[in-house]
Amino acid sequence: MSARFYQASFLPILTDVHNERCRFECYLEMLLDRRVEALIVVANWVFVNIDVLGDLEKNNIPTAMIGRELQAGSVSSVIVDNELGAQAAVEHLFSLGHRQIAFLRGPRHIAVTAPRWNGIRNFAKAHGLQIDADLVLDLPGSGNPLSGFEAGCSLTKELVRRKRQFTALMAFDDMTAFGAIRALTNCGIRVPEQVSVIGFDDIAHASLLTPALTTVRQPMPEMGEMAVSIVAEGIIALHEKRRLTAMHRKVLPQLVVRDSTCSPL
Amino acid sequence: MSARFYQASFLPILTDVHNERCRFECYLEMLLDRRVEALIVVANWVFVNIDVLGDLEKNNIPTAMIGRELQAGSVSSVIVDNELGAQAAVEHLFSLGHRQIAFLRGPRHIAVTAPRWNGIRNFAKAHGLQIDADLVLDLPGSGNPLSGFEAGCSLTKELVRRKRQFTALMAFDDMTAFGAIRALTNCGIRVPEQVSVIGFDDIAHASLLTPALTTVRQPMPEMGEMAVSIVAEGIIALHEKRRLTAMHRKVLPQLVVRDSTCSPL
Repeated sequence: MSARFYQASFLPILTDVHNERCRFECYLEMLLDRRVEALIVVANWVFVNIDVLGDLEKNNIPTAMIGRELQAGSVSSVIVDNELGAQAAVEHLFSLGHRQIAFLRGPRHIAVTAPRWNGIRNFAKAHGLQIDADLVLDLPGSGNPLSGFEAGCSLTKELVRRKRQFTALMAFDDMTAFGAIRALTNCGIRVPEQVSVIGFDDIAHASLLTPALTTVRQPMPEMGEMAVSIVAEGIIALHEKRRLTAMHRKVLPQLVVRDSTCSPL
Repeated sequence: MSARFYQASFLPILTDVHNERCRFECYLEMLLDRRVEALIVVANWVFVNIDVLGDLEKNNIPTAMIGRELQAGSVSSVIVDNELGAQAAVEHLFSLGHRQIAFLRGPRHIAVTAPRWNGIRNFAKAHGLQIDADLVLDLPGSGNPLSGFEAGCSLTKELVRRKRQFTALMAFDDMTAFGAIRALTNCGIRVPEQVSVIGFDDIAHASLLTPALTTVRQPMPEMGEMAVSIVAEGIIALHEKRRLTAMHRKVLPQLVVRDSTCSPL
């Protein structure tokens, strides 16, 4: 993303709103005061209240969101195909021979939770994979992304306590997967020999963990570049007195197979 | 750091120079064009050429560096006491009973390498700990911080190949420690039961690794707040037509004991 800005001689200005709505509003105002020419918002999974972006339309600032799709207005979006991504993950486990798969689903109020679960269910239906309701748990909602680790850890302990056999676990995201691996290891269960674990996102440290995490990559550099292209096009449109129109792009996820998954014993 | 800015109603503008000197110069110029009031530079371990900061003095912009101390000029600094930090790490291993300790030292050209090694040597001398020269390896210099992982991995494999017994390994930093853990695990050596591993920095994912990494924390929030206070004071000084003077602060590191270290068998 910043390479694209650099080539185009734009100065990228980053701010971190710490998932706080009031800080978002405050920084937005400061940025508008400084006459920013465009805005790219990276919507992480806990950022729910995004009505405030409506103000941007009034100000006529080309805006793109990464990771969240707004249905109305002129705000553009770049998201990964969450349904396909989840499908690729469960397909990977299935093709390794796993039939008893545990699922840690995302919090209910988060936009990406439903499409990911749809991807899993559709694959299961098409391939006769039984989903055991006792092996499906939901992450609680929370304002703190780190809590994915804690939740992954405690939900996995709960799964182990239930004494229902599972040979693979599909986590909502990489942080949840890290927590699951911690819990399994603490219970004396080896990853991947006894339980395979797969994440989603491919965050920076996924490959540095031992075992390195198998996951589904959201191609963030590509998504970032798309967002830059969209707002750059918006800046040109405004210069040429054309109207801003929202663009909605969906990119393909990539299965990244590393060391946290293998065939069941 | 950003909390401190937020309280003071400053807008923090972040840019990432990707360890490229030309990008640093280019962004610096853009920031000066936008009339930034102060500058805080986070010097990671690969950023060597910092003469360019001299330009800032001409522009009379209060500047603080985190992680690097400049001897001359008006650039302030906030660093951790690297000597004490390394001493705390080796003391932790020693007090657990380790006497055969391997060391992965930092690259020679990096400013923090020498004080960390001094801390280790001084502790060893004071407590009669023998340092086996065959168990001391140097990381190669590189422009890519991720390479710490690769280097930690390959140097640790080299240590194992030498067949000299060691029960603990002290890594230059957390990334190097992650690489060491990968190599040991791949060689069938259990961490911490067979070899304890300690890092330095306490980066974001150090606690999420399994086993969670024992390390020495650079208290970055505290260091960031200090840097903000220093440049805020500089802004006031300029408003009051006083001269900018450099402030140099050194903060205490904290030993963070987690699960990657234990007593030798």
